[in-house]
Amino acid sequence: MERDTSVTEPTLALARFVAETRGSALPARVRHEAKRAILNWLGCAIGASRHETVEAAIAALAPFAGPAQATVLGRSERFDILHAALFNGLTSHTFDFDDTHLRTIIHPTGPVASALLALAEHMPVPGESFIDAFVLGTEVECRIGNAVYPSHYDVGWHITGTAGVFGAAAGAGRVLGLSEQHIVWALGIAATQSSGLREMFGSMCKPLHVGLAARNGLAAALLARENFTSAAQPIEGRRGFANVLATERDLSRITEGLGRTWELEANSYKPFPCGVVIHPAIDGCLQLRAAHALAPADIDAIELAVHPLVLELTGKTSPRTGLESKFSVYHSAAVAIVDGAAGTAQYSDARVGDPAVVALRGRVRAHVDAALKEDAAHVRIRLKDGLVLDRRVEHALGSLENPMSDRDLEAKFRDLAASVLDDDEIEAILTAGWSLERAADSGRLARLTVPRREVRGAASRAATRPI
Amino acid sequence: MERDTSVTEPTLALARFVAETRGSALPARVRHEAKRAILNWLGCAIGASRHETVEAAIAALAPFAGPAQATVLGRSERFDILHAALFNGLTSHTFDFDDTHLRTIIHPTGPVASALLALAEHMPVPGESFIDAFVLGTEVECRIGNAVYPSHYDVGWHITGTAGVFGAAAGAGRVLGLSEQHIVWALGIAATQSSGLREMFGSMCKPLHVGLAARNGLAAALLARENFTSAAQPIEGRRGFANVLATERDLSRITEGLGRTWELEANSYKPFPCGVVIHPAIDGCLQLRAAHALAPADIDAIELAVHPLVLELTGKTSPRTGLESKFSVYHSAAVAIVDGAAGTAQYSDARVGDPAVVALRGRVRAHVDAALKEDAAHVRIRLKDGLVLDRRVEHALGSLENPMSDRDLEAKFRDLAASVLDDDEIEAILTAGWSLERAADSGRLARLTVPRREVRGAASRAATRPI
Repeated sequence: MERDTSVTEPTLALARFVAETRGSALPARVRHEAKRAILNWLGCAIGASRHETVEAAIAALAPFAGPAQATVLGRSERFDILHAALFNGLTSHTFDFDDTHLRTIIHPTGPVASALLALAEHMPVPGESFIDAFVLGTEVECRIGNAVYPSHYDVGWHITGTAGVFGAAAGAGRVLGLSEQHIVWALGIAATQSSGLREMFGSMCKPLHVGLAARNGLAAALLARENFTSAAQPIEGRRGFANVLATERDLSRITEGLGRTWELEANSYKPFPCGVVIHPAIDGCLQLRAAHALAPADIDAIELAVHPLVLELTGKTSPRTGLESKFSVYHSAAVAIVDGAAGTAQYSDARVGDPAVVALRGRVRAHVDAALKEDAAHVRIRLKDGLVLDRRVEHALGSLENPMSDRDLEAKFRDLAASVLDDDEIEAILTAGWSLERAADSGRLARLTVPRREVRGAASRAATRPI
Repeated sequence: MERDTSVTEPTLALARFVAETRGSALPARVRHEAKRAILNWLGCAIGASRHETVEAAIAALAPFAGPAQATVLGRSERFDILHAALFNGLTSHTFDFDDTHLRTIIHPTGPVASALLALAEHMPVPGESFIDAFVLGTEVECRIGNAVYPSHYDVGWHITGTAGVFGAAAGAGRVLGLSEQHIVWALGIAATQSSGLREMFGSMCKPLHVGLAARNGLAAALLARENFTSAAQPIEGRRGFANVLATERDLSRITEGLGRTWELEANSYKPFPCGVVIHPAIDGCLQLRAAHALAPADIDAIELAVHPLVLELTGKTSPRTGLESKFSVYHSAAVAIVDGAAGTAQYSDARVGDPAVVALRGRVRAHVDAALKEDAAHVRIRLKDGLVLDRRVEHALGSLENPMSDRDLEAKFRDLAASVLDDDEIEAILTAGWSLERAADSGRLARLTVPRREVRGAASRAATRPI
């Protein structure tokens, strides 16, 4: 068969890139970003590891799962690597607190890391190889996303699911040492499973898409290894991914600069587990509290000038539940002042009903300033003694211009993991994560997340269920 | 939440239909058609149970499969029901010899029966309930297909995969006794996994789509049972299946006549394992051979008048392999005369190279007659003694106007199963299939397909593979 094998052919170019890129070609800053992304993902997965979403999924599927090969992060159950990838992808996106590739709003780490870490518990994967595979997998995922965004998303596809499956296949293919041809097949088996509808937003299926992308991409690589064939041009072919799942596409975005620019450098992390548009206001409140040792009793009023989207998306003045409070700029500002934090604990039912929070929430005013950028806010706090404190936030913490520091990410990790793990367990994971490139066995990272404290989970229920 | 709950809302109407339709409401002829479809599907799956496609899939996935709950049809391995559904869907479409819903070219039985029979090996399912669930599942599948065909197919979707997942979810949901709300969720979890690209045609991924639809639909029902939520309007919602995966749609096709008309009545079966456009010519040759006890040595020439698509799609004059011979009207006519049959054996490498077949093949002429319908042909055989035999086929065997009889389907089943099972094993399956509605345990049908003869398959290889 005649075929143009120049590297401008997207599928072939990606396959060659995954098969042949040397680890030494990955810049140190990109490798460091990989570790930041992986720790952020681990924290999200551990934090949601008791959520009803994963309890339901485990109860449903555990009776059909395979050997105890890999860890469900933050839990004591072990399943076959395909189910582990599924469950870990699911938990990592349950709080919608994972990372975001800003060009495409893909959450890049969930599909790739969930597949890789499960695989790394079943075959020896040195930390350095793990990081290589993660960088290459997320690069493939985000470049395919770049090629079809925004038309693909506008049609109604949840791009983290649809693009994520390619990233998982590429990452797993790299770890399995697949040839270029086998990676073409893996990308094809991934393409033909690419799925996930935006209609599902607001239901348990949204995080499920991440788990499915991880599992299906991993299975694609495993199938390809056994010479399970697919099409030669699954991405660019006439009936392939880019034509069928998008109304417009720019395939040059896949190959341009491949191996020279790195999409992980456009990755961002959320510091607060609530709507991202509220983040600038929270950032300003936390800065003022820290600078002036503010107590709620001192405060007469909190005045927020915000981007128009803030009131459109998060204008709930009196949230009743923890979930609703994530969509309330009023609650967010108040609890940030009361607690000096805006972590998972601040969006619990308990904090929403706390008298001090409720009282201060009633003294928060917000108005729109159309001149503000999305990542900016202007916070003014009037004290009872007449003093006015003022803070302009130009780029909220977590934006690309003001990224979370490694220390910020550690604090976020501790906050997320604290509900499941003890302090020493948490610190051991942080240590292992930051030194991942020196680990002989990257699968240890998963096993470190298993709590020593007893866990009551869905698996025990499932095991006793008749079917 | 306010919601229009009239039965014209497609997802809700289908869910209610699946949850509430009484078995007694299904006409006897439809229930009989179900048994025909199931036996046809079983034969296809058994026949392909040693194919390299399923060998590769089992080698790749067996190390990660769960408990030995369900049979891979025609093989001795047992896996968890999700993997069994996957493998059986895969084998049932490997030969492209399964049934066809003519309005949509969906192959309806594979996704639904593969899910149901696996489930029926894990929980008791009386044969009557099995048939009910099969009829309801295929009805859901084909009605969703009707609503988006042809634009959905034209865009590039392999409709058996994309619609099949709904059928599997509906059928499994019925057997599991799910409520209306739970079936809505199951259809939603199915919708968001709907996938399969036509770009994959010609590769192992084409039959894989059927297996994935079966497995994913089954998993959707299992997840929904545990209150794993999805959207309220996964089919008709703004970002739902019908809007995202098709450029045009007619949702009234889902609800119109629901419970009164039955899509299984538009189901058809292929009598010959080759391109369907050749079937009229084969039918004519077989009729003339039977009527005149023809021997190849008597024949001077075979002249075929055929629909234009025949030479376009199946004009190979000198096929070299069994696979190529499926696209040769010349081989098909010759081997039908030589062997008096056009079954799987006639499309083997051995028959393609057989001197008697090759000699007669060289005496077959074919010309286009644009006046012929797709299911018609005109066969003229000139004998060496000067006699000319002539047969016009208006509707080939297997068309809706000239369906395969129950006896024809039995013969097809015997032909397919003969490579794997002994005669008494084959007859036991036929007996069990035709009396399925009286079976206390429909899962027995699967276990009857396990050959007593020793099988060497991929599982033994997989078990000794390091990973």
